[in-house]
Amino acid sequence: MTGLSPTAAGKIVSALLKKGYIHEIGEGKSSGGRRPILLELMPNSFFSIGVDLDIGGIRFILIDIRGSIVYQSFYEINDSQSFSDVIRKVKEISEKVAHDLKIDNERIVGIGISIPGIIDTEKKRIISAPNMKWKDIDLEAYLSENFNVPVYVENEAMASAICENWIGCCRDLSDFVCINIGTGIGSGIFTGGKLYRGVGGSAGEVGHIVVNENGPKCGCGNYGCLETMASIASIIERVKKLPTYGSICKKYIQYNDKDMDFDTVLKAARDGEEAVKSILMESAKYIGIAVSYIVNVLNPSKIVLGKEFVKYADIVIDYVKDVVKLKALKHPESFLEIAVSDIGENSSALGAAFIPLKVLFGR
Amino acid sequence: MTGLSPTAAGKIVSALLKKGYIHEIGEGKSSGGRRPILLELMPNSFFSIGVDLDIGGIRFILIDIRGSIVYQSFYEINDSQSFSDVIRKVKEISEKVAHDLKIDNERIVGIGISIPGIIDTEKKRIISAPNMKWKDIDLEAYLSENFNVPVYVENEAMASAICENWIGCCRDLSDFVCINIGTGIGSGIFTGGKLYRGVGGSAGEVGHIVVNENGPKCGCGNYGCLETMASIASIIERVKKLPTYGSICKKYIQYNDKDMDFDTVLKAARDGEEAVKSILMESAKYIGIAVSYIVNVLNPSKIVLGKEFVKYADIVIDYVKDVVKLKALKHPESFLEIAVSDIGENSSALGAAFIPLKVLFGR
Repeated sequence: MTGLSPTAAGKIVSALLKKGYIHEIGEGKSSGGRRPILLELMPNSFFSIGVDLDIGGIRFILIDIRGSIVYQSFYEINDSQSFSDVIRKVKEISEKVAHDLKIDNERIVGIGISIPGIIDTEKKRIISAPNMKWKDIDLEAYLSENFNVPVYVENEAMASAICENWIGCCRDLSDFVCINIGTGIGSGIFTGGKLYRGVGGSAGEVGHIVVNENGPKCGCGNYGCLETMASIASIIERVKKLPTYGSICKKYIQYNDKDMDFDTVLKAARDGEEAVKSILMESAKYIGIAVSYIVNVLNPSKIVLGKEFVKYADIVIDYVKDVVKLKALKHPESFLEIAVSDIGENSSALGAAFIPLKVLFGR
Repeated sequence: MTGLSPTAAGKIVSALLKKGYIHEIGEGKSSGGRRPILLELMPNSFFSIGVDLDIGGIRFILIDIRGSIVYQSFYEINDSQSFSDVIRKVKEISEKVAHDLKIDNERIVGIGISIPGIIDTEKKRIISAPNMKWKDIDLEAYLSENFNVPVYVENEAMASAICENWIGCCRDLSDFVCINIGTGIGSGIFTGGKLYRGVGGSAGEVGHIVVNENGPKCGCGNYGCLETMASIASIIERVKKLPTYGSICKKYIQYNDKDMDFDTVLKAARDGEEAVKSILMESAKYIGIAVSYIVNVLNPSKIVLGKEFVKYADIVIDYVKDVVKLKALKHPESFLEIAVSDIGENSSALGAAFIPLKVLFGR
């Protein structure tokens, strides 16, 4: 396949064996001559770290070079922590995990960090991450100060798209869009088999498509953006405004000191609170409207809905599909599959962890 | 630049000279040795035909291999003509022009045909061209029956995008969008330096983004699509509904048998008919809203507004820009230039004519 001569391939294989990237796993079937020696990537030889920074906390994942998850954990952080506090926490976690698992620094290929905002991945800058209240941060200094392995930064939805393309439901697809529903709403777009960033790195900002002209004001200045109608934050906001909110709290929040969170919203919806369920269905309608625009403009083969959406997809996914069938143009809609991510909350952290591996494998 | 040896390059040049694609135009400056012989593409040696089929008529352009326009003309056609009638007309025109200009068939590299609809360029099928009332047409038979040179078909907005990328204001740009305002509204998208078609060939259907939830019903089934608020057809419709329409007709339509057309609309607007001008400005607002979504989703370096828009750009372009500044996210907006096409009505026919040349030049 590579066109390399057996001798050249042999030399490369020897070097990779010596460095411990690969190992022999026995002999294969002969196709006439000597039986071939089978090789595979060496489990637990080298590792990559993926970190997803979000308003709720830090999601940490350690994978080996085969992409298998070796360790994962989640650390809550306080709201509006500075980037330097958060990155120091990431350093602490990385060091502790490496120490506990006895992994030398040389065996860590790199760290990928997913951030919910507009990122300049080349200059390693956060342009803006409004939900984190981070703006115009040059990351280079922070990263070189805290880590002595290569560190890559990526937008969270683009990281998820990388993940879906690498191990998820978009493995052999060249034109697809991953929409992440979380505190905010963003998307990662693949065109022609490649992540599409646009000229300023911010392609995929679907959260600010206006889906309801009479909707509430958005942080971006417009009214009724998708984020104001379908983000998890907006859903919780709307539940809080229900006339029956008091009784919902009494019924579903066990401890008085706890605020309404999304899991409680879902518990109420599943338990038959129709008003809560209606809010979920309405949010799904707006997701469907935004999806139909994306279908018309990009004509992708798949749109994957991920992150928090996975938690309530069973309730709303059919409705999302119905809205898209109704709203999108027939021709592009006929090529489209709408899918719920199999990977869910891990997708950005995993996608981020794949970035150092993609560099290693030259992909 | 090519890495070819002088001997190899010499052989190729000789063959091209012999076939008449190129010719010598004198000697250049010596950089030490023998003075180099300068070559250029031979004017009027080989030709390409571009045809833009639209509801108003057939736009016909003949260019030579340098891309210079040798001949152009416009032929009105009746509404709702069948594709076979139209293509026979194209054949007639092509033959007459070739005969008048004494161009042998062997010197015509090919024909590109631009069609306002969803096209399968590989299978040479019209999926749908609603404004032309064409649907599910296999073009192969029509084309091979009428022409004995290679014929290529292309969506009209994608043809315009090819044109802007080849000779227009997007020559060195890799990520841009051409939006054509005409009877309908469509766009041609370039991502990473290439025309982006999507998986079903229909990417760029921006005409069906809903920009006014309370707008009129669109052919696609939705209400308030961009096409219903900003296409030339919709603008004329709205002018016809003005209370002052009778007096506008009396004042600006010279002959009673003539219907209101867009040129008359523009004459009235320029002459100070405020109600007419307001309709143009409102259409511009909706163009601005759709552009802002495209900016958020694709983060392109340029959006070119073309076709009929060119006729009234002087009146509305500043307003379009203001709306985009207000509605689009700051970051992608900061990378964006909004431009009016220099090429205007010819862009699809010219773009179509470039397709055979792109094939010839292997681009």
